[in-house]
Amino acid sequence: MERIERRACFGGWQDVYRHESAVLGCTMDFAVYLPPQAQERRLPVLYWLSGLTCTEQNFITKAGAQRYAAEHGVILVAPDTSPRGEDVADAEGYDLGKGAGFYLNATRQPWAAHYRMHDYVVDELPALVEANFPATDARAISGHSMGGHGALVAALRHPGRYRSVSAFSPIVAPSRVPWGEKAFAAYLGPDREAWKAYDACELVKTAQEKLPLLIDQGGDDEFLDGQLRPQLLQAAAAAAGHPLQLRMRPGYDHSYYFIASFIGEHIAHHAAALHGQAKAHAGVAHGHGESCGGH
Amino acid sequence: MERIERRACFGGWQDVYRHESAVLGCTMDFAVYLPPQAQERRLPVLYWLSGLTCTEQNFITKAGAQRYAAEHGVILVAPDTSPRGEDVADAEGYDLGKGAGFYLNATRQPWAAHYRMHDYVVDELPALVEANFPATDARAISGHSMGGHGALVAALRHPGRYRSVSAFSPIVAPSRVPWGEKAFAAYLGPDREAWKAYDACELVKTAQEKLPLLIDQGGDDEFLDGQLRPQLLQAAAAAAGHPLQLRMRPGYDHSYYFIASFIGEHIAHHAAALHGQAKAHAGVAHGHGESCGGH
Repeated sequence: MERIERRACFGGWQDVYRHESAVLGCTMDFAVYLPPQAQERRLPVLYWLSGLTCTEQNFITKAGAQRYAAEHGVILVAPDTSPRGEDVADAEGYDLGKGAGFYLNATRQPWAAHYRMHDYVVDELPALVEANFPATDARAISGHSMGGHGALVAALRHPGRYRSVSAFSPIVAPSRVPWGEKAFAAYLGPDREAWKAYDACELVKTAQEKLPLLIDQGGDDEFLDGQLRPQLLQAAAAAAGHPLQLRMRPGYDHSYYFIASFIGEHIAHHAAALHGQAKAHAGVAHGHGESCGGH
Repeated sequence: MERIERRACFGGWQDVYRHESAVLGCTMDFAVYLPPQAQERRLPVLYWLSGLTCTEQNFITKAGAQRYAAEHGVILVAPDTSPRGEDVADAEGYDLGKGAGFYLNATRQPWAAHYRMHDYVVDELPALVEANFPATDARAISGHSMGGHGALVAALRHPGRYRSVSAFSPIVAPSRVPWGEKAFAAYLGPDREAWKAYDACELVKTAQEKLPLLIDQGGDDEFLDGQLRPQLLQAAAAAAGHPLQLRMRPGYDHSYYFIASFIGEHIAHHAAALHGQAKAHAGVAHGHGESCGGH
């Protein structure tokens, strides 16, 4: 593991590291923000999964999250969005291949050789972080769009692994929207049964752990009706008795201006769960924005 | 004037406008952040001048300034860094020509036809803003690197025009560093007397208005010794009895991670001057960071 960037930021350090991923079979970069408290003690970690076309850079340059991480004493880890390198399969278009790993383990060729972002994000990266940084094993996960999908799926599939989960503008029902259908057909093949393992609306039906789902969604998001459809998850969560708070934000779009506006509330939410004694089973903070929660 | 971008951000709007600049003789884009208070009343304006290679986008995507502007009720205006378009002269290298206007009025060809960023920033743009937005004529100015130079020069040359001025990592003595010498020789010609009109270290000697200068400078800035040399302005200000506070920030570099870390303090400083009854003649806020002030 090699540090390739280091920037002082809000009293801590915004770093980027490069390592050889055994899971992905390629060289990967990931960003780590170490708040000032990390000089003194081990801190919990919030994993951030970015959306289509992003690298580890987008979140660290545009979200303004470091201020809140420094305020709350939380390490931020932001991986890339797919395997990288000349040996890695790619496709035309921004929504398949590099920059579009969809945080799943591909089973079809040519993707299966490298596209194992689910295992990378859930297992390999946390093990690396907890072994090499002043990090505890208290984890939270969040993300945007494709990364919101990744965060919800990671938390729903792995009870006990995360103290809290949230998402901005997530793809909640990839099996039923164009982005997800294209990616899942390529990565997982035509059998839609196999898709259920990476579809939050399916996973919520049988989730063993009722970790509350916190979602912020811009009301003027250009992908809201065609690709995101958060009401599908709201309905599925309500049917399953799974706690979910969906906050519609009128006027906001799909951009990092939206994320920047509310990332402070998400980090406060995660910090409360991460620093608390118990997991965040007992309800999400209320009172912010337009709330139309499940329960 | 045409609005070409609009994004909801921290309860307000991050817009980008396009207009025909009479001063520059070309089409220009500039960014305007309207905080939520702008829906109810006219607000003062902080002008932000960006550094070499930047457009109006860098500050609005990376500085995280909107949060503080919304908190303090200040409009942010960020122009581009040079004239633009196919008719506009350019040069090899990032430090002359497009993206490198140095906020001066060029007198030499081929530059003189369009490179009049000083008049654009000081006169034309504020007139446009005050006529078309819910803006008062209370103005503040700040900037980074080349833009810090631009902000200092604008304030020092135009007594009464700004309520407050600050800079991040400014080029304080362009006549004596490579970036400035190259640009001034091209834009203004070989006569160094003419350069004094755009050199903060010269202007501070005779400034009619003792507007306090607030400067933040990263201690690990890769351009500190070669291009920035803030101690030259500190000495010139001390000799002239001009109030200056230079805050050295150990560990910080020249990037937007540095700006993001301290822009909140600058906006608070400007807001106090902009919302106050009197101009900010009476001392800069103390107590933050490593302070080695003039007086």
